[in-house]
Amino acid sequence: MALFDLAPELLATYRAPQPAPTDFDAFWAATLEEARTHDLNATFTPLDTPYVTVDVYDVSFTGWGGQPIRGWLTLPRARDGRLPCVVEFVGYGGGRGLATDHLGYASLGYAHLLMDTRGQGSGWRQGDTPDDAAGSGPQVPGFMTRGIQSRDTYYYRRVFTDAVRAVETARAHPEVDGTRIAVAGGSQGGGIALAVAGLTDVQLCLPDVPFLCHYDRATRIVDSFPYGEIGQFLKTHRGRAEDVFGVLAYFDGVHFAARAQATALFSVGLMDDTCPPSTVYAAYNAYAGAKDIRVYEFNRHEGGGDAHALERMTFLHAHWRTR
Amino acid sequence: MALFDLAPELLATYRAPQPAPTDFDAFWAATLEEARTHDLNATFTPLDTPYVTVDVYDVSFTGWGGQPIRGWLTLPRARDGRLPCVVEFVGYGGGRGLATDHLGYASLGYAHLLMDTRGQGSGWRQGDTPDDAAGSGPQVPGFMTRGIQSRDTYYYRRVFTDAVRAVETARAHPEVDGTRIAVAGGSQGGGIALAVAGLTDVQLCLPDVPFLCHYDRATRIVDSFPYGEIGQFLKTHRGRAEDVFGVLAYFDGVHFAARAQATALFSVGLMDDTCPPSTVYAAYNAYAGAKDIRVYEFNRHEGGGDAHALERMTFLHAHWRTR
Amino acid sequence: MALFDLAPELLATYRAPQPAPTDFDAFWAATLEEARTHDLNATFTPLDTPYVTVDVYDVSFTGWGGQPIRGWLTLPRARDGRLPCVVEFVGYGGGRGLATDHLGYASLGYAHLLMDTRGQGSGWRQGDTPDDAAGSGPQVPGFMTRGIQSRDTYYYRRVFTDAVRAVETARAHPEVDGTRIAVAGGSQGGGIALAVAGLTDVQLCLPDVPFLCHYDRATRIVDSFPYGEIGQFLKTHRGRAEDVFGVLAYFDGVHFAARAQATALFSVGLMDDTCPPSTVYAAYNAYAGAKDIRVYEFNRHEGGGDAHALERMTFLHAHWRTR
Amino acid sequence: MALFDLAPELLATYRAPQPAPTDFDAFWAATLEEARTHDLNATFTPLDTPYVTVDVYDVSFTGWGGQPIRGWLTLPRARDGRLPCVVEFVGYGGGRGLATDHLGYASLGYAHLLMDTRGQGSGWRQGDTPDDAAGSGPQVPGFMTRGIQSRDTYYYRRVFTDAVRAVETARAHPEVDGTRIAVAGGSQGGGIALAVAGLTDVQLCLPDVPFLCHYDRATRIVDSFPYGEIGQFLKTHRGRAEDVFGVLAYFDGVHFAARAQATALFSVGLMDDTCPPSTVYAAYNAYAGAKDIRVYEFNRHEGGGDAHALERMTFLHAHWRTR
Amino acid sequence: MALFDLAPELLATYRAPQPAPTDFDAFWAATLEEARTHDLNATFTPLDTPYVTVDVYDVSFTGWGGQPIRGWLTLPRARDGRLPCVVEFVGYGGGRGLATDHLGYASLGYAHLLMDTRGQGSGWRQGDTPDDAAGSGPQVPGFMTRGIQSRDTYYYRRVFTDAVRAVETARAHPEVDGTRIAVAGGSQGGGIALAVAGLTDVQLCLPDVPFLCHYDRATRIVDSFPYGEIGQFLKTHRGRAEDVFGVLAYFDGVHFAARAQATALFSVGLMDDTCPPSTVYAAYNAYAGAKDIRVYEFNRHEGGGDAHALERMTFLHAHWRTR
Amino acid sequence: MALFDLAPELLATYRAPQPAPTDFDAFWAATLEEARTHDLNATFTPLDTPYVTVDVYDVSFTGWGGQPIRGWLTLPRARDGRLPCVVEFVGYGGGRGLATDHLGYASLGYAHLLMDTRGQGSGWRQGDTPDDAAGSGPQVPGFMTRGIQSRDTYYYRRVFTDAVRAVETARAHPEVDGTRIAVAGGSQGGGIALAVAGLTDVQLCLPDVPFLCHYDRATRIVDSFPYGEIGQFLKTHRGRAEDVFGVLAYFDGVHFAARAQATALFSVGLMDDTCPPSTVYAAYNAYAGAKDIRVYEFNRHEGGGDAHALERMTFLHAHWRTR
Repeated sequence: MALFDLAPELLATYRAPQPAPTDFDAFWAATLEEARTHDLNATFTPLDTPYVTVDVYDVSFTGWGGQPIRGWLTLPRARDGRLPCVVEFVGYGGGRGLATDHLGYASLGYAHLLMDTRGQGSGWRQGDTPDDAAGSGPQVPGFMTRGIQSRDTYYYRRVFTDAVRAVETARAHPEVDGTRIAVAGGSQGGGIALAVAGLTDVQLCLPDVPFLCHYDRATRIVDSFPYGEIGQFLKTHRGRAEDVFGVLAYFDGVHFAARAQATALFSVGLMDDTCPPSTVYAAYNAYAGAKDIRVYEFNRHEGGGDAHALERMTFLHAHWRTR
Repeated sequence: MALFDLAPELLATYRAPQPAPTDFDAFWAATLEEARTHDLNATFTPLDTPYVTVDVYDVSFTGWGGQPIRGWLTLPRARDGRLPCVVEFVGYGGGRGLATDHLGYASLGYAHLLMDTRGQGSGWRQGDTPDDAAGSGPQVPGFMTRGIQSRDTYYYRRVFTDAVRAVETARAHPEVDGTRIAVAGGSQGGGIALAVAGLTDVQLCLPDVPFLCHYDRATRIVDSFPYGEIGQFLKTHRGRAEDVFGVLAYFDGVHFAARAQATALFSVGLMDDTCPPSTVYAAYNAYAGAKDIRVYEFNRHEGGGDAHALERMTFLHAHWRTR
Repeated sequence: MALFDLAPELLATYRAPQPAPTDFDAFWAATLEEARTHDLNATFTPLDTPYVTVDVYDVSFTGWGGQPIRGWLTLPRARDGRLPCVVEFVGYGGGRGLATDHLGYASLGYAHLLMDTRGQGSGWRQGDTPDDAAGSGPQVPGFMTRGIQSRDTYYYRRVFTDAVRAVETARAHPEVDGTRIAVAGGSQGGGIALAVAGLTDVQLCLPDVPFLCHYDRATRIVDSFPYGEIGQFLKTHRGRAEDVFGVLAYFDGVHFAARAQATALFSVGLMDDTCPPSTVYAAYNAYAGAKDIRVYEFNRHEGGGDAHALERMTFLHAHWRTR
Repeated sequence: MALFDLAPELLATYRAPQPAPTDFDAFWAATLEEARTHDLNATFTPLDTPYVTVDVYDVSFTGWGGQPIRGWLTLPRARDGRLPCVVEFVGYGGGRGLATDHLGYASLGYAHLLMDTRGQGSGWRQGDTPDDAAGSGPQVPGFMTRGIQSRDTYYYRRVFTDAVRAVETARAHPEVDGTRIAVAGGSQGGGIALAVAGLTDVQLCLPDVPFLCHYDRATRIVDSFPYGEIGQFLKTHRGRAEDVFGVLAYFDGVHFAARAQATALFSVGLMDDTCPPSTVYAAYNAYAGAKDIRVYEFNRHEGGGDAHALERMTFLHAHWRTR
Repeated sequence: MALFDLAPELLATYRAPQPAPTDFDAFWAATLEEARTHDLNATFTPLDTPYVTVDVYDVSFTGWGGQPIRGWLTLPRARDGRLPCVVEFVGYGGGRGLATDHLGYASLGYAHLLMDTRGQGSGWRQGDTPDDAAGSGPQVPGFMTRGIQSRDTYYYRRVFTDAVRAVETARAHPEVDGTRIAVAGGSQGGGIALAVAGLTDVQLCLPDVPFLCHYDRATRIVDSFPYGEIGQFLKTHRGRAEDVFGVLAYFDGVHFAARAQATALFSVGLMDDTCPPSTVYAAYNAYAGAKDIRVYEFNRHEGGGDAHALERMTFLHAHWRTR
Repeated sequence: MALFDLAPELLATYRAPQPAPTDFDAFWAATLEEARTHDLNATFTPLDTPYVTVDVYDVSFTGWGGQPIRGWLTLPRARDGRLPCVVEFVGYGGGRGLATDHLGYASLGYAHLLMDTRGQGSGWRQGDTPDDAAGSGPQVPGFMTRGIQSRDTYYYRRVFTDAVRAVETARAHPEVDGTRIAVAGGSQGGGIALAVAGLTDVQLCLPDVPFLCHYDRATRIVDSFPYGEIGQFLKTHRGRAEDVFGVLAYFDGVHFAARAQATALFSVGLMDDTCPPSTVYAAYNAYAGAKDIRVYEFNRHEGGGDAHALERMTFLHAHWRTR
């Protein structure tokens, strides 16, 4: 992929033209309030893993609609006092995987809670959390247009609510320091992290090559999946673009970014044709908290890869180890 | 696509090796019995269309789980007495489309009921029927692994139940002759037609290049979609093949075919790499009723196209016009 | 396909820069005059089809060079007086198909004459009309560069002449009202309809995602087929671009549009990389008659599909039913 | 491309199952007799080229239907007495190119006549010979199904007739030794060479990776072009396979091979998915004259390339230089 | 990818037909002897990483030709006594990556030495080790045909020698228990592990979807990269197949397997078209030591992924933790 | 490929923004000086070829690092006095091929020396010259990043040095007129020709669709190979772009062009997505000598093909025959 989006100097100041819906905050306040009528019911079941350096727990908590959401909590075995915690979200199509898949954050000495994404977890890493009740266990995608008929039924309403409650779950653990929570993730995981940072109070936010931002531009400049699922929907349901983008406005990372206060470290690939750089910058430039961004010029959606993983570690230590 | 499956002389006698589950019939009897506890509630709302030769009605009836299913009923405007009726099912990803999309069967002088497929109708022709309740309106696929965790939650349990009730809906119309019902469809529509013919009493069955047959072979000899969704699921959920094919055995066109009594006209494309010919022949060779098959040697999944449409018309007239 | 052509606001006013050749009208007058030296010899042979709502006739008439051209005439069985008639042309590579393929316009209560395209009818729907004499029956394409050595030998000189005579054929039928003729078609069919509207007097013109417009731009901004056949020719015959575009100028929908007086309904797909939107708008903006256009933003060459089919029906009724 | 056709040990003895039509020889005798009613009218116009080692002549002669066919004759400048002559035919889609494109055979000290292929010469190298009269100059392909409605109108009837007359043209040149003629060519050129060797008396035949052999097998085991044009025709014209292969039987290299007496050097690529090795071996194994074959195991349709060019030179010298 | 190689029941007993060259052992004995004339010069430089659970060392040692090879040694921070050690090799095109990329084996409580692959490390994970002297730093591939002119100059002679010395380097570390060494890796890493197990004495061998086995079959049944590089070489260098496979016979995992005594755990993907299952089974069936294999039926070259990572952990604990 | 780069009117004046490194000339002076410490050792071994019009010699000379470089010298058999000589370089991935592959320039009456490219000659035409010492014979690419760690080790330092010495080799032949040397080549061959014209004194320069120009733009606007190898390197070695382009600046055809004094004939394909037209024009517009360019608008990387071959012949005769 060559450079195909706005020139770097234009990206630096690019802003999405549409404001948030006027009842954006009211919609989300009501949504979260409803979710909190269900008891969180966070459970952490210790597992027997082959590792000697970390302890892993099977996590369950109550997400949207009173439905159980799964995850993994990984703690450094050698620990002492309350730990800062990274709450991580997964990329599109993947699930929480196996308990043994997640060593990184705990090996830094921090707690790490990974949330399974409802209904996903069949495309590239397995998951264990259904979306809804009967007939909706983990499946091959797509999810981008599930329930897109209204903001109330849209799939990401459920996912973002789950994610806010995942942060509450982390805080509910006796060994986690609830004042030091980071939300993190790549692609869809980055989009969810932005949503959480806009919906609740966390200290740090690490969205990598975030998805779920500036949908109307994304669907017009690339036809790659998963944004392309929305384009495919509009191709079939002709004349529905205004309705669909009207619904998606309640789920746009650009608007969550404008409400976020956490200190953020973004990353972007300038040749990324899955999450085009202008859509990432639209969120970054709107982001209300302290922020920085790492730019990977010759990378597509893989973004900064292991080099950026190291940037994330350095960023976390800068905030947490010096304390 | 060149010829890639069994040689024609082997196709002619090919049989799928696996028997039906022993409680196959009990499972379906219970499923349909449960569905029938809900009132059918068939409604036919006349529409104002631009046509002068046919009348179209917006259909609604109660399918699986008491949920409303949509469809179109098209009748020849010049009609007299009770008409034979073709109940048609749609190919994967498509919906019932617009009221104005369906002229063929009614122009023959027959009633034509087209059933919308729940949750589908965004891939190539729009639909209007949700699958389940909140958050599951029409969406971009896939459906092949939705609810595949058990036979009770599997997506096609709901679809096949809807389809049986679509036949009941046709029979509930005062201008339809319930003794002369044909079920028909191409690809997924053909697979659903086979299921209905195996589950209830109809006169004729016209499955074209049917999908949803002999899943375990299909997923091993082609990786094209939609069968490929199952392969993708098994690629991620390693070690689950036995479970998954155990569930799918309750939804296999081969087993429905072995129970069907309707007189059937099949079609097959010998270069079809979406629904490989051996899987079509596995259903055809197992089919218990009177049967015939048209073979299109140089065709892929488009099968016999308009030439076979004419074969279907001739077949229907042979059974219905001579009366 | 993402948006790739001019921005929508530029499309609205885009004009092709090249004027028509000065002897454009003379060339076509001479061409048609020569064609009319052959007797039209329109014949309508009734067919026995399975339909009860329409009657179908096998049509033959004399096209370019005195050669016989085939078609189908479909009339509503219940008819009364002279009918308005839609004369339709087919997309690239297709033929008239089977007599049973065409129900739509007659089911509206109008006459429908579908013209076979000489030499085509092997790519996606069969045809029955040869181009020329020996050795030139229906075949797999391409046609874009057949005879491109001069305006006199170019393939579309023959096709457009056939099409003008198809309108004369419709008018020759005793049940057709010659004052109410619409020409219609998609892609190549739309390009032919534009040519006919520019060459003869018809009431209505319905070109969908028209092909054969603004060749020099099309071949430079897309390499997809069929425009790409011209690019492939120029790639091999280096230095011939001026000659080739000089010939094509006599066959450009932009110039026919500038001469048309029929009331028109166009359609365009903004992501159409077969017939790029700027080439469609070049014809639309040049169109001399009353006109309107439907824009399908998220569609490629499929354009408005069934939604636009309904638009066409509404447009026809607005002109013909109110009478 | 991996090995995909019959195993090498099966190729060595593979025979096409169908015999030639009983009137195969009569058909071709009549065809050639009709062609010879037109005067050959061979002309050789000297050209001014930049070369100092060879002389090039623009050739014209009368082919099928009395139509003029073009070519190049290249002679070594230093020559003495009558020369052996290689008559070469071109691969599918190409033309005779420029006069300066052909140095090889003349640089060996032999005469070289290259025949332009009617109607082709726009796909990869330009040509100058029309097929038929009006509207049929050189064009982008395809040609495989042109006139396939009958053996009389089929395109290759004209081409093979042209090719026989090209040999007569070579013999008509005063510096060519008519007893020492080789026919040669790659792909389509090889298929034409086989046809000529089966239709007339020549000394040597050099078909490389020959096309136009065993059509019924080729179209069933590969879908690549150009054989795929036939498959595409049959896909659209359902039910016409018997007719089409009935026509093609009169043009099958397998049957020409069985009639050829020239000493032959074949070549084949075992991974060739354009002209599959079993179709080449079907011709080779049927070949009636003295013969040898060079096998290129890891090559596709490029076959032996420059290595085989050297083999051809060695073969020609073995027959001609020792004299 | 569908199943394309031998049926599972044939795989179970499939053996490669060619024996090892008679001087295979002599060649490798001489190669290793020469390498050992250079001092090993193993150095382990402690690094400052962000991790609290493991310690990482930058490794250098003398590989083939006296050239320095890099790697990472990762040890559990909490350790006590001499540790078993996994020596791991990398897949084709990748390098050792960053020091922070490798947590898995050390988190099990074992030492982990990862060897950089000379010249690679630019395709998907960076490396730091040149191949040779001037002008041969890390680069984009390919490597399959580097030096293939003779067994002495072939690239993998150098790599396999490096790998044997990597084991010696592990044993040179004071905290490693030299009697408990496992060699491991996926794809190319698995091929190297097999080579080391055949060339030196190690306790365990874990080759996943191993590459570099049964080259002559692999290059004939798939054309995917990297085996396809050999096919591409033979396509250009016609007539060199015997020479090339003669050289490769000294580097074939099948022959190393027949000499290995370590207890082995293999894995294979039955739809793997990069390292076809028959080539993996050829090595497995030839393997001389105790052995087991995990089969992933619906997987391509990703094989068992995280599920198999857990199998490897279980296998290592079974041998090392019970001690 | 459609037009994708700058509009033709912008191409005409496009200049690359970066100046040459300040020590560019010093670097190359030192490099060539070092090379010349090795004796040229040019040898011309007569070969027995099948041709009667030309004589071919197997050439060897000392290139970079004292290493032997191969080539072919082809002379017209009928010759007299000292001949002008075309020194030609080969496109990426190819080698010198067979002695019998090269007739063109000698058939014009000129000497022709074709240089083999070290290490290449396996991608599309075979070669015989290793790069470096052990383990680096001809191989499948890539070469773009070989030794890119510094200007001293970069692969093209060796190739360009070889090429300068190839000109010296031509001049060392007793039948060559050293005052009339042209350097020529297509793609990589054109890039090498530009380098030679910038590094040494030659009379004429014929770069066709030249590669190796304006690397930083090329790698950002296309991702095709071979420029894409650099992009792939930077994708993996994140953060190295400045270093890499710093090295490449010493090898950029734009800077060589600015130093060249030979009279030049360039060619460019406006749809060339391998060597984008703006990178060709960057070199052309910087070219210091007399110059002209042929533009092929509808061509990709094949550029002017045989038509441009004729242009080259005409250009050479204009300079050499008139003498």
